Parts: sequence; C-alpha cells; structure tokens
Amino acid sequence: MKTASGQPRRVEKKRPATGRVFGGSSGYAGARDGGLIYHRRGTAEAVHIKKEEATVSDTLFDRHRKTLEAAGAAIAKRDYFSAYPEIPSGKNYGETAKADGLAAFEARLDSRFEIDQPGTKGTAGQEVSPYGRPLGISYPRPDLDVLLPAAQAAIPAWAKASAETRVGIALEILKRLNARSFEIANAVMHTTGQGFMMAFQAGGPHAQDRALEAIAYAWQEMNRCPDKVTWQKKISKTDVVRLDKRFRNVPRGVAAVIGCSTFPTWNAYPGLFASLVTGNAVVVKPHPGAILPLAITVEVAREVIAEEGFDSNLLTLVADDPDAPVTKTLVTRPQIGIVDYTGSTEFGRWIEANASQAVVFTEKSGVNSMVIDSVDDIKAVTGNIAFTVSLYSGQMCTTSQNIFIPAGGIDAAGAHMSFDQVAEAIVGAVNWLLGDPKRAVEILGAIQNQETVKRIEQAKADGGEVLRESEAVANEAYPDARVRSPLILKTDASQERLFMREMFGPIVYLVATTGTDQSIELAARAAREHGAITCAIYSTDTGIIEKAEEEVFAAGVPLSCNLTGQIFVNQSAAFSDFHVSGANPSGNATLCDAAFVANRFRVLQSRIPAAVEAEAHAGV
Amino acid sequence: MKTASGQPRRVEKKRPATGRVFGGSSGYAGARDGGLIYHRRGTAEAVHIKKEEATVSDTLFDRHRKTLEAAGAAIAKRDYFSAYPEIPSGKNYGETAKADGLAAFEARLDSRFEIDQPGTKGTAGQEVSPYGRPLGISYPRPDLDVLLPAAQAAIPAWAKASAETRVGIALEILKRLNARSFEIANAVMHTTGQGFMMAFQAGGPHAQDRALEAIAYAWQEMNRCPDKVTWQKKISKTDVVRLDKRFRNVPRGVAAVIGCSTFPTWNAYPGLFASLVTGNAVVVKPHPGAILPLAITVEVAREVIAEEGFDSNLLTLVADDPDAPVTKTLVTRPQIGIVDYTGSTEFGRWIEANASQAVVFTEKSGVNSMVIDSVDDIKAVTGNIAFTVSLYSGQMCTTSQNIFIPAGGIDAAGAHMSFDQVAEAIVGAVNWLLGDPKRAVEILGAIQNQETVKRIEQAKADGGEVLRESEAVANEAYPDARVRSPLILKTDASQERLFMREMFGPIVYLVATTGTDQSIELAARAAREHGAITCAIYSTDTGIIEKAEEEVFAAGVPLSCNLTGQIFVNQSAAFSDFHVSGANPSGNATLCDAAFVANRFRVLQSRIPAAVEAEAHAGV
Repeated sequence: MKTASGQPRRVEKKRPATGRVFGGSSGYAGARDGGLIYHRRGTAEAVHIKKEEATVSDTLFDRHRKTLEAAGAAIAKRDYFSAYPEIPSGKNYGETAKADGLAAFEARLDSRFEIDQPGTKGTAGQEVSPYGRPLGISYPRPDLDVLLPAAQAAIPAWAKASAETRVGIALEILKRLNARSFEIANAVMHTTGQGFMMAFQAGGPHAQDRALEAIAYAWQEMNRCPDKVTWQKKISKTDVVRLDKRFRNVPRGVAAVIGCSTFPTWNAYPGLFASLVTGNAVVVKPHPGAILPLAITVEVAREVIAEEGFDSNLLTLVADDPDAPVTKTLVTRPQIGIVDYTGSTEFGRWIEANASQAVVFTEKSGVNSMVIDSVDDIKAVTGNIAFTVSLYSGQMCTTSQNIFIPAGGIDAAGAHMSFDQVAEAIVGAVNWLLGDPKRAVEILGAIQNQETVKRIEQAKADGGEVLRESEAVANEAYPDARVRSPLILKTDASQERLFMREMFGPIVYLVATTGTDQSIELAARAAREHGAITCAIYSTDTGIIEKAEEEVFAAGVPLSCNLTGQIFVNQSAAFSDFHVSGANPSGNATLCDAAFVANRFRVLQSRIPAAVEAEAHAGV
Repeated sequence: MKTASGQPRRVEKKRPATGRVFGGSSGYAGARDGGLIYHRRGTAEAVHIKKEEATVSDTLFDRHRKTLEAAGAAIAKRDYFSAYPEIPSGKNYGETAKADGLAAFEARLDSRFEIDQPGTKGTAGQEVSPYGRPLGISYPRPDLDVLLPAAQAAIPAWAKASAETRVGIALEILKRLNARSFEIANAVMHTTGQGFMMAFQAGGPHAQDRALEAIAYAWQEMNRCPDKVTWQKKISKTDVVRLDKRFRNVPRGVAAVIGCSTFPTWNAYPGLFASLVTGNAVVVKPHPGAILPLAITVEVAREVIAEEGFDSNLLTLVADDPDAPVTKTLVTRPQIGIVDYTGSTEFGRWIEANASQAVVFTEKSGVNSMVIDSVDDIKAVTGNIAFTVSLYSGQMCTTSQNIFIPAGGIDAAGAHMSFDQVAEAIVGAVNWLLGDPKRAVEILGAIQNQETVKRIEQAKADGGEVLRESEAVANEAYPDARVRSPLILKTDASQERLFMREMFGPIVYLVATTGTDQSIELAARAAREHGAITCAIYSTDTGIIEKAEEEVFAAGVPLSCNLTGQIFVNQSAAFSDFHVSGANPSGNATLCDAAFVANRFRVLQSRIPAAVEAEAHAGV
C-alpha cells in the first residue's frame, strides 16, 4: 500500500517547533521603525498581500522580538521589568505628546466615535466625566446577530496565521497604544475619575505592560507543542509503526472582554491580548461609564489588523448604556468561547454560573485587610497607609478597607502606643497628606459613581465612631468634580455587620481586636468569605509575619509586609506581582500566569502513516 | 527604619527555582529499589519523621527522577514513550504475577473492601460483572459531612511539602499500581466488560502512562515561578526600591474525580494525579458499576501516602449505588475546588453548569465519524475498520459510529467500487474478524450496561437497512457473559434522525452521501453539534485530506488518515496524542496539556522591603 500518496502537503508557514530560533525574513529591516514610512507601507497595499507571501508580519515580530524576549525572561524571574515608560515626560513621549494627547481627547468630545464594524443600529454612549461634564460621545450600538457572526468569520485566517504573525501584530498594537498614552490618559481620567498621573500610568504604560505580560505567557504556551513529529513504536522484533503527526493550535472562538468602570484598560488588556494572540476574535464590552479608553484601543487595534491584511472584525466594540445593558446577552451567546470579566462580585458570580459554554476568567472584588501588630517607625507606617487609603479615593480593588489594631495598643519602636494613638496617627497622616488641596485632588481623583458617594453616607449611618469625616474637596481646575476624601470609622471586632462586607470607596474601618491573633483571623476570614485581593501587615516580629503568611495564604490572599516609602499595598507590578490570586472569591484567575492563557486555545492533531513505512512495505 | 527585623525566616525546604538542578540528599541511595527493604523502611517510623528532616520523599523523587525526566522530554517532543510495559508477560511483571493478580482479584469477591477512612456509615456496592456474576463486594459508604472536612484537614501539610516530595510519592504510587496491573486488569475486565488483554493494557500500563503524563505536566507548571526574587526598581537617579518577594504554590482544595464505567482507571488517573501532585486532596467517586479498579487504586495510594508521613485522607473513596447516587451532591459542595468528570454528555453538562464553585474538566461523549473517499488497498482498510468497530463492542468514546461513503462509490487502487461493494467489504471484514469465536470474545469483550443491549434493538427499530445483525456471541469461559457483535446499518445522508445522534455501543451506520464533500461536512457538523473525539478519513488524494483537516479542525476534532495495520483510530497514545480536544461539545479539556494542570493550583506571594534597603537607609 502506498500511503505516501495520502500524505498531506506540508504547510510551510506554521509556527516554529519549540526551541527553534525565531525565524522569518527581514524584508523590512531597512525601514525605519514607526512613523510615516511604516504608515505608508501598511495601508491598502498590505491588505492585498496574500498571507502565504506575507513577510510583513514576520517583520513586525522581528521588530518587537527583543521586547517579547525581555518580557519572557521577566515573567520567569519575577524581577522588575517594564517595556513602556511610566513617566509622562516629553523625553519619553515627545515634546508635543502631552498637548497632542489632550487635543485628541478633546476632539472626541460631543461627537460620534466612528467604528467601521458591521451590524450597527443606532448609537450608545452616556458617559459623564466624574470631573463634571458629559462627554457627549456616541458610539455605534451593535446588533449582536450581525456582529458576532462577523467576528466569527474573521477567525479562520487569523487562526491559521503563525503565532509570530499574531504576536507581532499585537506588539505593534501595543506600541501604537503606547504612543497614544496621553490621549488614553485623558480618556481614562474623564471616565474613571482617576487623577491625571494615575490615569496616565495605570491607563497607559502599566496597562500596556500587563498586556505584554499576557502576550509573553501566550507566546510561551503556544510553543509548548511542536508542529510535527514522526512517532515510531516498535510493535515486534522486526516491525515498527511510524506515524507522521501534525499539531495545530486552534482558538476557542469569539472572546468577550467585559471592562470595568475604574480601570478600563488595565483590567481589560490582559484578557484582550491573550485571547487575540491565541487566535480568537475579541469583542470588547466596556462598562457603560468608561467606554472611551477601550473604544480608542479598538480603533488603534483595528487599524493595525487591517494594515496587516487581516479582517479588522477580529476586534470589535460593543457599547451599551446603563438602561439597556447587553452583557448578559453577550456572554451567554453560543459563539462566545471565552469571557474575561472585571467588576462586581454579584455580576461576576452570575457570569461564572451562566456562561457555562465558555471558559470564564473573573476578577471580582472583596474585603481587603491590613493588620497592625507592631512598628519601628509609626510615621513611616502611617504615611504609607494614608497614601494607600487616599489614592483614587479608595476606588482600587486593592485598597485596604479594614485596619485591624489590637484594642490594647501596639509596640512602636519600644514605646507603647494605645489603639487611639495609632488611630490618631493614621487620621493625622491622612489629614497631612490631603492638607494641600492641589496635592489632595491629584491623589484623590474623583468619585466614578454617584453610588459610591451614597455609600459614604450609608457607612456613617450604619454605625461606628467617626474619626475622620469624608469631605468634598474643591478641585480648582474642575469645579464640578465629585471629590471625596476618606471617611475613617472606629469600631471593634464584635461589629462584623459593619466591616465584614465590601464598602467600596473611601471608607476605612479601624477595628479594635483582642490582639494580632484575632486581627489575622478576621483578615483571613474576610478573604475566605468575601474574597480579598490584598492583605498587608506591619510587624517587627518575624514569627508573627510567618504566622500571618500561613493564615492569609490559606485564605488565598497575597501578603505585603511592612511597606513604607514609595511602595504601597494597592500597587501590583506587571511581570512580578500576580494580581488576584484566583484562590478566593475575589476572582478565579490571576494576571498573569500560564493558566490565564493556556486554555484560550486548544491543540488539534492529524496523524497519517509515515512515508518511510510505506516504502518499507513496498520493499517487502 | 530597620525593616530587616521584619523579614521572615527563610523556609529552606521549598521547591527549587526554575531551572535548578534537582536537589535533595540521597540518604537512601544504598537501599534497594522496591521490595521488602522499601516496605520495611516506609511504615510506622516514617510517620514520625518530621517533614523538615524528611529525606524520605527526596529519595522517592530521586528514585523516580529518570522516569519523570523522560516523560517530560516526551511531552515536549510528542514522540513515542511508555514507562510501563504493555505486554502482560512474566518477563515484565514476574512469572507469578498473572496468577497472583487473579488470586488477589478473586480474594476481593464476596467480601468487604475495607478502607480506613473517616465518616463511614454503612456500605455501598452492587457491581455485576458483564461476564455474568455479581462481584459481591461492599465498600464503605461515606458521610460527606465527615469525609470532606477530613480531606480538607489533610491538605495543609501536603500543600507545604515540596513539589519533589509530592511528585516522588505520586510516582511511587504509580510504580506500585504497575506491580498490581494483573489484579487491576481483572478488576477492570469484570466491571467494564473489556477483554482481558485490553483490560490489562488500558486499565494498567496505559492508564499509568496517562497518569505519568499528567504528573510530568504538573511538575513543569509547578516550577514555572521561582521561590523568591529580590525585586529592584529605580525610582529616581539615586533611589532604588528593593522588595524581597516569595512565591508559593497553593492548591485549590478538595478535588473530586468522577469515574466512568468503561475506562475507570484510564480516564480517572490523569485528573487524580494532576490534582494530587499540585497539593490538593482528592476524593474519588467511581461509577457505581466500576468501583473496584479505583478502590484498589485508592488503597495503594493511601498506603504510600501514610508511609511517607502524610495524612492518607488526601485520597479517599466515595462509593455509591445506582439507586442512591451522590455525584451531584458531591461536586457542588463548597469544599470542592476541582472536578474531573468522564461520562455522559447530559451529566457532564449538568456539572459544567452547576459546579460553578470549582474548576471543571470534562470528557463527555459524541458522534465520531469516518470518511471513505478512496483507497489503495480495500482489504487493508476494511480490516482496520473491522477491528475499530468491533473492539470492546464499540464502547470506546473513540469508536467511529458513522462511516460516510459516496453513494456513487469510490476509487480503489484505480478500480471503481460501488457503495454496496464497499459496504460488503466492511461487513465481510467484520465477519472474518469475528469468525473465530475465541478471538471474537477477546476483541468484543462484554457489554458493560444492559442499556447498551437495548440500544441495539432500538437502532434496528428506528430504521436503516440491516447489513449485519448484532449477535450474541458465546463465551466459553463465561457462559453468562453479555456479548454482542456490531450491528451494521445502511442509510443515507437524508436520514439525520438516525445517525446524527450518539448511539453508544456496537452500532455502525454506513451513510451514503452525495460525495466526499458532503461526507466531510456531515462529519464536521456532527462534531460541532454533538461533539466528537475522533475522526478518520481514507483518501489517496492529498488535497482531500488537506480539506478534511481544515474542516474537521474547524469543528475541533483531531484527524486520523489512512490508518491500516496495527494502528486504529480509537487508540490514543499517552505523551503524543491529545485525547479529547476540548474544542467541541465532547469535553472542555484534554489529556494532557498545560491547561489541564496549570489551574489546579494558584501562586501566592508575600513581599517585604529587602534587608539591603534597610541597611542603606541606616547608613543615611
């Protein structure tokens, strides 16, 4: 039998086997990186380059290869790395970047945000800046019955492209997003209420770093299985069976990325890019209060995708309004193979329970704790705490809500401090930090959602002694900004009804406990029952830190110990810190690990008797 | 500020950093591998060895290290590998192994299977051999309210042990299971109805190989993140922030493994061992019709675990009866963090939708297709097909159910063969294969479930022309065995109500199509709509094979091409073939890939200012 004739033609353009040195021609090696030359090359002509001949994408991969390799090394070592400069300086971004970004943002206001995607019927968009003005931007409102099939139709060519091609394109998208960081910063600021610096960093380079991290993981996973192998099994003394096997990564389908209102890009990018580079189409569904940053992202990405000859419907936007939400409909559609969700616990649970046709990655919320046991330098400690609880008015999923302090006080560098003295030091540090109104509004930003303002009132009404009132701080530049400083309440461990619940926003409970043992127990239990993304402890006793580590690890929460200076418990560094453990109710996944990417694609294989066997048979 | 004092004590016994050469002392290097010496060493004394001093487990790891390394190399290359001999010979297993295994099995019959696990209330066990006799074995019936907390209590010490320790123990369990392969083979044969040889191979060494594969993946995943790093970020020209970070793998909790009635060990081992080595406790819930093979497995594993000083409740058995099933209760318990399920599509969907508190891995079932387009050697082809559809009476999840053949016939080595001639050749090959009753019963085995016998009758009643009757074949050794040969029906593509549904068992539809295009379309659609685990094609045209590959890959099914001789579409080789793609309704996971193991544990981290920074500060 001549099985040789049955052997499929070898497809040459597939991803390399594991360990292969990165290949691909460098036809554009002489072209200048970025700028006009790139843009000119990458328009209409590129669309007509047949994929088989496309060295274009190999070039993008080569161009961004060092970034990818550095990211890959960083995630293995977990040391410091960043690919995108976090300082919004002219040196990093060009002298006109700041003004250009602001102008670009302002040009978006009070107009239509056009996206040339199929199935648009009418518009959506009711964003209002927490700094006081409606953005007045309208987005296409999609008909999912048209949009989802269009997204599906874009997949086959994308899935057949090499991993290098997809990764190269994703890294080019990131590069262009980075260049747009000032525009995106303004968009993030005026949807989330973050201060400008935070909006720039968290919405721009830090989000881009998290995206790169996800891409680096995906790249590694996509290269774990070789393209092909000849499998040989000796079945008797003389006979060997030989099969040629080919393996191909295939995507899960259309991925839905559900954004949140407070970190629209930072939380959406990892899932978005992980799904995209593994061959899926991605539908981006922003929070109705923070559409613009993701709309700009979709716009930039569609441009690059089209330039490289792929169907731009690989990335589409689903904008909706608070009064006509589409998320539940979207995530349960049969076309949706992956869901990435960031938002409330309640909605996250609904998705986990109902989108059972899809692989679901969630980041929900929780009750974050801080334990004060003993300190060397109370000023350094309370200064750090003050910044933590003030930053973005406590609207970070990583902000500490409950600070557990022994009712009998603590040891501070050999001296005793009573509970009230510690509480006073914290309140004093917050007051000092926010004493300068200009600094205050930059740190506090604005309150994203009116519900959060109501929650402050509710917290006061519910009980606890008010140690510090939440105040409406004036913002000179934006007189209508919704700014609130932290409310600090004193209570004790018996009042679980107050603190053993999530109170999102600038609300801090100082909880008197019977001692550090109880403090740790409450921190761990809050995490176990309500979820927690962070936990912090201050102690000069290594034994207590060890004990805390055991107990909070058992509750699935990472631990930050004795942070002072310029590192805060609510910061999470890409390439080093795993954000959300996936080990408690605050979420089922982490940013980022192998589990975050490995299940976004599957491996399919074909097997056929090897030619050599046929020849051997022919010779018999 | 002296943050140095706040630095936790370094724990020495953690897993090594990525890339570290395997360490650990070899205190037992002089001891003979296995046998009496091992057993003596590993009893009561070992239990009292404190984990900190335990070189015992390092020794197990060292002892099995080469096996692990070879498995790790194989999964990266996907070439042939096997660690456990598949030939049930005296040379491989010892001259008395066969008789000893049979005697051990027979000693189990009509008696209590004792497992010293907590929370037993009464007994379960109603297994009846498909070869004709009730096994008469009673197992502990567990009280989940007692058993699950006991399983949870076993986790902390196990989770804190090193990955080497856990993997070493798992590999020792496998080694001992391998030595018990004959006993397990009899247990598999008399619960599943498999013929002895198949029961030995699939229930013994092949299942052990699949377990080793899962362990090798888990080992790689557990070593992706280092134990620790000092993270340094330059925050100004003169200032550097330094954090000592520690990382620890933590398990998800209690894992439930839901076994099936046809391949109780092969399908359960990968999830069982993947969960165990990643630090979880595992509760094994066998199918009520096939408890014994997994009960033996649990017994062997508990022995090794206890010898090594861990709590044997890390692995427990939940036996139940068909009239009082516990699976739904078990998998939705809050303690359950992972579910591995093999079984019917309907139940699998229920678990996917309802066990939303857990990470769920399913292998369900589907409608497998074969496409005959053209052949070089019809005898070689139909001989292969005859074995495929006869083996274990079509009760493999990989058996082809529908064989699509052009109504106009095919080309066979240049000659035309009509549909009926092809059909006749297939029927003739089955008749020849099963013509010798002794060979027939070894190939067919017995029908596991009476429902499958009824389904044969139902298939006849539903329609299609009977080309070959299903027959009750006499088994001399077991006169009461429930043996049925394949029913072969002829129909055409218009009769989707017949073939476009799963008809589990020895039921084969030869479906006349308008041509190979339609054949491929139907094969792909069956996979998309009902799931499929395998797809086969016979064609001498490489273009058609390419086209088939595209279309069935798009439907998420692997493809086997032109198989003849000793390789069959229903075989899946560990370390090379991915079993179930996870890309269609036949299941959401694969055996095995990184995604199968990476989410069974999470990484937790702690961070603390590095001592060096404190010194630098002190110097200021």
